[in-house]
Amino acid sequence: MKPYRDLTRAELLALKESLNKDYQEVQKKELQLDMSRGKPGISQLDLSLPMLDVLTSKDEMKASDGMDIRNYGVLDGIPEAKQLMAEMMDTTADHVVVFGNASLTIMYDTVSRAMLKGLLGETPWCKLDKVKFLCPVPGYDRHFAITESLGIEMINIPLLEDGPDMDLVEKYVSEDPAVKGIWCVPKYSNPTGISYSDEVVKRMAALKPAAKDFRIFWDNAYCIHHLYEEKQDKILDIISECEKAGNPDMVFEFASTSKVSFSGAGVAAIAASKANIDDLKKTMTIQTIGYDKINQLRHVKFFKNRAGLDAHMMKHAALMRPKFEAVLEVLNEELKGLEIGSWIVPRGGYFISFNALEGCAKDIVAKCKDAGVVMTGAGATYPYGKDPLDSNIRIAPSFPTPEEMREAAKLFTLCVKMVSVDKMLEAM
Amino acid sequence: MKPYRDLTRAELLALKESLNKDYQEVQKKELQLDMSRGKPGISQLDLSLPMLDVLTSKDEMKASDGMDIRNYGVLDGIPEAKQLMAEMMDTTADHVVVFGNASLTIMYDTVSRAMLKGLLGETPWCKLDKVKFLCPVPGYDRHFAITESLGIEMINIPLLEDGPDMDLVEKYVSEDPAVKGIWCVPKYSNPTGISYSDEVVKRMAALKPAAKDFRIFWDNAYCIHHLYEEKQDKILDIISECEKAGNPDMVFEFASTSKVSFSGAGVAAIAASKANIDDLKKTMTIQTIGYDKINQLRHVKFFKNRAGLDAHMMKHAALMRPKFEAVLEVLNEELKGLEIGSWIVPRGGYFISFNALEGCAKDIVAKCKDAGVVMTGAGATYPYGKDPLDSNIRIAPSFPTPEEMREAAKLFTLCVKMVSVDKMLEAM
Repeated sequence: MKPYRDLTRAELLALKESLNKDYQEVQKKELQLDMSRGKPGISQLDLSLPMLDVLTSKDEMKASDGMDIRNYGVLDGIPEAKQLMAEMMDTTADHVVVFGNASLTIMYDTVSRAMLKGLLGETPWCKLDKVKFLCPVPGYDRHFAITESLGIEMINIPLLEDGPDMDLVEKYVSEDPAVKGIWCVPKYSNPTGISYSDEVVKRMAALKPAAKDFRIFWDNAYCIHHLYEEKQDKILDIISECEKAGNPDMVFEFASTSKVSFSGAGVAAIAASKANIDDLKKTMTIQTIGYDKINQLRHVKFFKNRAGLDAHMMKHAALMRPKFEAVLEVLNEELKGLEIGSWIVPRGGYFISFNALEGCAKDIVAKCKDAGVVMTGAGATYPYGKDPLDSNIRIAPSFPTPEEMREAAKLFTLCVKMVSVDKMLEAM
Repeated sequence: MKPYRDLTRAELLALKESLNKDYQEVQKKELQLDMSRGKPGISQLDLSLPMLDVLTSKDEMKASDGMDIRNYGVLDGIPEAKQLMAEMMDTTADHVVVFGNASLTIMYDTVSRAMLKGLLGETPWCKLDKVKFLCPVPGYDRHFAITESLGIEMINIPLLEDGPDMDLVEKYVSEDPAVKGIWCVPKYSNPTGISYSDEVVKRMAALKPAAKDFRIFWDNAYCIHHLYEEKQDKILDIISECEKAGNPDMVFEFASTSKVSFSGAGVAAIAASKANIDDLKKTMTIQTIGYDKINQLRHVKFFKNRAGLDAHMMKHAALMRPKFEAVLEVLNEELKGLEIGSWIVPRGGYFISFNALEGCAKDIVAKCKDAGVVMTGAGATYPYGKDPLDSNIRIAPSFPTPEEMREAAKLFTLCVKMVSVDKMLEAM
């Protein structure tokens, strides 16, 4: 097909009519599909079911250091759980603290602690007139919700194909002492699926912040969440890169098994320098006596080590791949050459990020919804829910089946076409 | 024996020598006992072992509302877990939100939220010059650590045999708008073991605070933790009492199964008014997608309901009672009539609270430690770790065996005698 913008008004009107008919047909199917969140499918959850059998009343209730996992104690996680999470994050156990079931909670608590108590002896952020975070966009809505909820001003930074626009990041971080953090999803980024290049990671680690308590919030959410056995992205270990650059305390890294074992009942962890960990433990010890060590040991017994995690993630990949491929095939079949949208083909993670023509995203998402397919709200991938171009749409293919995904993607491309045609007609 | 204060100097000196000999004998035994924390004993933890078998890979992974317990979702807890925790707290499920493994974390987060976001639209406490909490003493060190850590000024309120001194509480709460909260352990109080009388609960619920955002932090930690089948304390339900008194939003109640199932892997909950719950959910939804629903269902399948909880707690009581009785017997045998200490005989909870002569607590605890028995640090039961009389000592009999408890209690009473004699000689 030729690009839509080369069509005449008459051609566009004819196209509009035919698309409308197609849409009416789809509406009759009364679809009910949810592509709004990066929620694992049921078959993915089934992969970890045997984990519920590895720790029964017959088993030893002791961690490797002899600690009774059922009782109080152990603030930072049992040794073998620290080791497992360290291997997952490509770091060492001495950098790791294991928490409860959600890395989101660790991130919230880390920002909240900086607000109330300050970091490494610096002024608590709540005592400052202004605190700012850099937000590579499009990005993860729940990150932005944390900073928005705590009154932190967010600054959009374009996320390029190899990571955030580092020229801009360097400028803000080195010039403005109110800039205290940056949200990063460095691998299989949410939503674009890109991974940070070695150069970007090195520039990030070598930042020279105006604020002593500037921190990189490195949400390594998809560190082992590949779609392929062969084609896998690799990123540098931010902890050691920061050490090498003389900035050991500049980063907090986060990860969890939420999309490895069970989304509600996984294990989450932070990795950071010894100074940062000692600092956060001072607050942690007020907030808890310790997290669920039984679930920590359950995870270790089931996954054993990095090799076990990797093997398990290949089972996830086998289930995820057909869903991603279904969407990508339909996008290709339906939109290639029309120049009304672009997308990146990801090698991992949970999302496909679609950029529609400017001013079209909200209308596309609304049209999908009217035909029974719920997408992530347009704008959600930007701070304050405001996509300045109204262009980005996050597609979350994980929950529906591949067949449902194909159907949903077809509706999606139909809506993209309809809204694009309307915009073009308006602009004529 | 006659009271120590009736002894002559010569008698005291002779006594001192004989006590010293006894102490040297005990030191030879090289005891290694820990009575510092309210930590369940191993046999108590064993009671809940079968809970690890009630949810296996063969079982239905759905909550009563059809929700897949393995996936994301459900901010406030699965319905049957809310019901169980409501029954435990003598309230209704609509008042309850179920969290992760620790009520301490809920308490910290609740105060932290009030600091950062304010309660029900009031000014965030971190924006105020001064925030104060009333602290019935002796009380729970971890409560005091939360308020101390967040820079909240703590005011001691004497804890009487039927609850806090309500005249004082009413005065502070009604006169000082900086008083924003009070820490309460209303049943089998930590450490004195007393329970609040109906009159105290009613006066608490009828407070007329100068601060709109004053809250009672009602830590119902020992709500079902009786030592006896027959002799059980009952307290009024604070939620409905506050409703009746026209103060529905004035209370946050907390409880957990930490000392019912597993201390590190239980389920914790808050109970509050609808307005408070709606308010806290606004922050909760930023902090988490939801807590561990698998562990919630595991608890429900194991305990089923209040009757199940109660039956289980009687098994705990059977294990705890001999330990408490061992301590109480030794206290009686060794100290009765000497007038160098007093204690309350508790009907539940985890502690026996001992009041030594003024200025003796620190020395007694130190002497115990030198002979291998670790007690809770003297002063820990007071804000800032400062017992103005240096008198209160918390005894935690749960972890050692009854035989060990008897031995530890004997050493304890020996140390009480030694330090008391020294004080009396000094004062002569």
